[in-house]
Amino acid sequence: MKEDVKVCFYPYEKDVVVKRGENLLRAALEAGIHINASCGGEGHCGKCRVVIKSGEAECKECRKLTPQELASGYRQACRTTILSDLEVFIPPESQLDKKVLERRKASTSSGRHISSQLLEKLVSGAWYNPALRKHFLEIDPPTPQDNTSDLARLLRSLKRQCNIENVSVDFLLLKKLSPILREANWKVTVILVQTRVESQLGKYQLRGSRRPKLISVEPGDTTDKHYSVVLDIGTTSLWGQLLDLNRGETLAESSEYNPQISCGDDVITRIIYSQKSGGLKKLQDLVVSAINTIIDDLVKKSGVERKFISHLTAAGNTVMSHILLGLDPRYIRESPYTPVANFIPPVRAIRLGLEVEDFVYLYTFPSVASYVGGDIVSGVLGSGVYQRKDLTLYIDIGTNGEIVLGNADWLLTASCSAGPAFEGGGVKFGMRATEGAIEGFDIHPTTFEPMILTIGMVKPKGICGSGIINIVAELLEAGVISPNGKFNVELNMPRIRKGPDGFEYVLAWKEETQIEEDITITEADIDNVMRAKAAMFAGCHSLLEKANLAFPDLSQVVIAGAFGDYIDLEKAITIGLLPELPLDKFVFIGNGSLLGAKLISLSNELLDDGERIASKMTNVELSEDLSFMEKYIAALFLPHTDAELFPATIQRINGFKKASRAEAGRLS
Amino acid sequence: MKEDVKVCFYPYEKDVVVKRGENLLRAALEAGIHINASCGGEGHCGKCRVVIKSGEAECKECRKLTPQELASGYRQACRTTILSDLEVFIPPESQLDKKVLERRKASTSSGRHISSQLLEKLVSGAWYNPALRKHFLEIDPPTPQDNTSDLARLLRSLKRQCNIENVSVDFLLLKKLSPILREANWKVTVILVQTRVESQLGKYQLRGSRRPKLISVEPGDTTDKHYSVVLDIGTTSLWGQLLDLNRGETLAESSEYNPQISCGDDVITRIIYSQKSGGLKKLQDLVVSAINTIIDDLVKKSGVERKFISHLTAAGNTVMSHILLGLDPRYIRESPYTPVANFIPPVRAIRLGLEVEDFVYLYTFPSVASYVGGDIVSGVLGSGVYQRKDLTLYIDIGTNGEIVLGNADWLLTASCSAGPAFEGGGVKFGMRATEGAIEGFDIHPTTFEPMILTIGMVKPKGICGSGIINIVAELLEAGVISPNGKFNVELNMPRIRKGPDGFEYVLAWKEETQIEEDITITEADIDNVMRAKAAMFAGCHSLLEKANLAFPDLSQVVIAGAFGDYIDLEKAITIGLLPELPLDKFVFIGNGSLLGAKLISLSNELLDDGERIASKMTNVELSEDLSFMEKYIAALFLPHTDAELFPATIQRINGFKKASRAEAGRLS
Repeated sequence: MKEDVKVCFYPYEKDVVVKRGENLLRAALEAGIHINASCGGEGHCGKCRVVIKSGEAECKECRKLTPQELASGYRQACRTTILSDLEVFIPPESQLDKKVLERRKASTSSGRHISSQLLEKLVSGAWYNPALRKHFLEIDPPTPQDNTSDLARLLRSLKRQCNIENVSVDFLLLKKLSPILREANWKVTVILVQTRVESQLGKYQLRGSRRPKLISVEPGDTTDKHYSVVLDIGTTSLWGQLLDLNRGETLAESSEYNPQISCGDDVITRIIYSQKSGGLKKLQDLVVSAINTIIDDLVKKSGVERKFISHLTAAGNTVMSHILLGLDPRYIRESPYTPVANFIPPVRAIRLGLEVEDFVYLYTFPSVASYVGGDIVSGVLGSGVYQRKDLTLYIDIGTNGEIVLGNADWLLTASCSAGPAFEGGGVKFGMRATEGAIEGFDIHPTTFEPMILTIGMVKPKGICGSGIINIVAELLEAGVISPNGKFNVELNMPRIRKGPDGFEYVLAWKEETQIEEDITITEADIDNVMRAKAAMFAGCHSLLEKANLAFPDLSQVVIAGAFGDYIDLEKAITIGLLPELPLDKFVFIGNGSLLGAKLISLSNELLDDGERIASKMTNVELSEDLSFMEKYIAALFLPHTDAELFPATIQRINGFKKASRAEAGRLS
Repeated sequence: MKEDVKVCFYPYEKDVVVKRGENLLRAALEAGIHINASCGGEGHCGKCRVVIKSGEAECKECRKLTPQELASGYRQACRTTILSDLEVFIPPESQLDKKVLERRKASTSSGRHISSQLLEKLVSGAWYNPALRKHFLEIDPPTPQDNTSDLARLLRSLKRQCNIENVSVDFLLLKKLSPILREANWKVTVILVQTRVESQLGKYQLRGSRRPKLISVEPGDTTDKHYSVVLDIGTTSLWGQLLDLNRGETLAESSEYNPQISCGDDVITRIIYSQKSGGLKKLQDLVVSAINTIIDDLVKKSGVERKFISHLTAAGNTVMSHILLGLDPRYIRESPYTPVANFIPPVRAIRLGLEVEDFVYLYTFPSVASYVGGDIVSGVLGSGVYQRKDLTLYIDIGTNGEIVLGNADWLLTASCSAGPAFEGGGVKFGMRATEGAIEGFDIHPTTFEPMILTIGMVKPKGICGSGIINIVAELLEAGVISPNGKFNVELNMPRIRKGPDGFEYVLAWKEETQIEEDITITEADIDNVMRAKAAMFAGCHSLLEKANLAFPDLSQVVIAGAFGDYIDLEKAITIGLLPELPLDKFVFIGNGSLLGAKLISLSNELLDDGERIASKMTNVELSEDLSFMEKYIAALFLPHTDAELFPATIQRINGFKKASRAEAGRLS
């Protein structure tokens, strides 16, 4: 864990605490200090000059500085790594009026990142009760007086030594049982699983008795080698972790893009692809091969032998789950949108082509509805929402926005088609959150010059999902766009111009980019972002209304998904994507789906909980709901047409505009 | 059902009731009337001349009779079919002293053939509760207000319309569910199975709750098409029946030789073969292909569509069960003789290569020990032995003789290696019970000329298992052999001679056979028969002794197996294979194994019973038991060294000898 260091920016005397090794330009953005920077952090434009007054920092390839400047302490912030507490001076040409600065950053709090209490409980042993168990048995060899079958002998030992009985037996086990018993001199380790390997639950089904199932036997004592792989099957990304089931620890993590992207960006185009001849099989093979790559990587990184991986757990949205299992997702797309099944019996993993031992089952997280998948159930489990007395709103922002509202007593869920804007789609220069995507953005309140930071600190190629939120929020705060999303053309500055698709703002000039053209954000882009955020917000709003509640009733807002992790909360509130609430009510859960999958691997009680959550969730279909449509239209404004929902935000934006107008007046 | 007709033989005035269409020579044998016949019934020797005095009979190709003889009512008995009540006169040259005749046939009773009371109970509905059920469902189509998953919708209807809940679901079903529901306009038939599709029971396992499992769904209402196939997997023969599960009726029956015979005659040689490279797979493929032929035949004979066969049940001995399932039988053969498993979880039939729908499971009858298989459990179930208060001895005579002793409270079981004599092995001219095998045999008490009848009424090729019992008994009764199995060479007749393997009796001269050599029975053959019968008898004797009981305590002796059906009870007692008891205590169960398999297909209660029987049976290992060895040696005598065990038999044999000596004295 890297230590914290403090960076103080002068003349504002503004502090920010960051990790040692952080980039200085990023630290400035975090502190709310505008430093001109148009090359994305690649060091090319040379605009982000700062002076290091004290402390240790490393500057690599500061090509835009003369040796004299370097000797005087000048650095390019974007090329500078923070090595200790620093005092940094911003040169006059980049300075802002301090009052403007203070209005801009009402708070530096950005929500809490959850340190899963659940997981801690598990590791401390309170609930540690994995579905998968290993037991070492010393079996009496057969004699003429006691020559019962090999299987009966093994079951007898299991009863005598572990007091486990009434188990079912996997047929494949019988094929290898006799030679293993003899080769191992009747000392073996058995693997029992107690997920429901062949069962089915739903709202109309009561729980059946869950018998342990004997799935494998290994020679000798292998109880210390006891592993499971958990998977998050996302539309865009796949994540995997290798767990040590004895210690509840994650030994390795790995991720891959979902190669189904080549067949379509979102679940709808994937469903359409699946209807082509051989389409479903191809999609299944693609995701299976990527999972195999992840398993390979996990094995390599952890040094664990593949043969000791005894279980797989996967969480994914309903469409991804269907495709992984080879179930036709066709009717998910056709009204009234019905999946084949929400509760899916565990499947032998090799049947899907997964490269694990033949006894390994894949447990798939149950879904709730066509657009409320196992990933959400997993996330609700991982976040502990279902255990709290007070009210939580759980949001997974993505192409298919998924929302859960509730507490320990009830859970309402809805999905809303936000469109791909937050994943970089439907935006002229939109791209996924990969190298070269603009994520950090700040705008000079009087010159309207941008400060941009890209992923990987390279020349920009486009804009990612969190970047687009930041850009729209900054443009709004700076008054470059109006609350209706239209450009303020009266500003009369070169970066605002009429392009082929209407008005646009130039984020980076051609020569500053990787793509040989100006990177802009257009009115059409802003319109798409407004539709997306309006859908998410109206979804949350409608769910609250269905429960006769309002935003102030929320004691917590959980934001899930890898994407969620990068959102600047204040910016998201500014554009009206998230409700205006004290920032400490927001919690980032990270990849909730992977966390949930991990939890159920470690605890049968939580496995039960996961199924209870899915059974308990009541899905609200918004797509044909009139009240939702009204709320959606009302939300097509920045931040919202109803000023009472965003009083502080609107006040702040107005105050900022006033201040910057005053500043502009003074400078002009 | 053919009507009964009565045939009266003169001058003895001896009646026999047979079915219309019976062969006249066979009827004579049944009545205990000796008619010289050495060609096996083929019509070639012309010795079996009789005169039809009244009634209707059809004689085909009586080539050995002149037109005048035919006109006078002469017929060759072996070529004559009985069409009505007959009066038949035996010509003087074939007549016996009437007293001799009367001594020979103490009784014409030959045991009862069971008309399964169980099966009648089932069909009358008392216990009718098949493991497999079909239910027609009319499902509400999804709407925007009610768009739960297809599976949940189906399960909801199952609950509402049939009050069935808490079911598990076969994963494969999910793959076809959605299109079937829609094509069938939401009117479908579901198939539920409630055998333990994934479970395991044994002596040390308590019963788990048995949840119904949803295995298939069919468009429309197919509840009237509800079929199952039951199989008896014998070492030599395979039998199958197609059952209508709605009516409890057998629609077709079919059988095939077990083609594994090409890899060895008995289970031991099959085990040895299975240890060769690829051997087990070849044996499995052979039996699977023969079962497929049986299923083809059943489908053809019954007119039932193959896709409506929803379940398979098989009973076989432990080795046959192992091989069918691809489980290595190696340790069954090696001391201390342990099978892989006695209780085998149901297996998806297509995994074995069986040509049925993919949702069909194969349920295998549980075994008790290496040499006490599911066929015996099935037979004990089918015979109802386990339900009776009084004591039953159940015997399955074969290469591996299997014995069960007990009642409703307890069941002891043992197997004894009788050797192959009763299946035609280990006998110089032994053969299986196929065309040309001598089965019927009678010997003239003074001339010692034989009367032989072959299967198919053709020239003899050899001797089958039931034939060898009849021959040895007849030779003993006629004094041709002594109680120690040695020939009475003093008789000084051409049919008794010294052959290459010691003394022998010529059953048929070369020119009367199909094989261009004399067919004989040798002292070595008789020795093998004695060993076989001694093993069976000593096994029964030992089991009784273990239970502190004796033969007179038996209220019933059940004889099972297709072979058992052809045994002449009195002959079997005469040689000491079966104990000397009133003949009405013997019951022939026929193919008990197939009957048991049928019963459990029709009744879940009986399925439970089958498993309870297997759990309850205590196996007694005889192969290393000293008391068994003593009893075995004592039984190496005809009928037995202990005259007190066979008083009436010995008296009868002695009386017969005296009478025939008197007759011989008078004729000479």
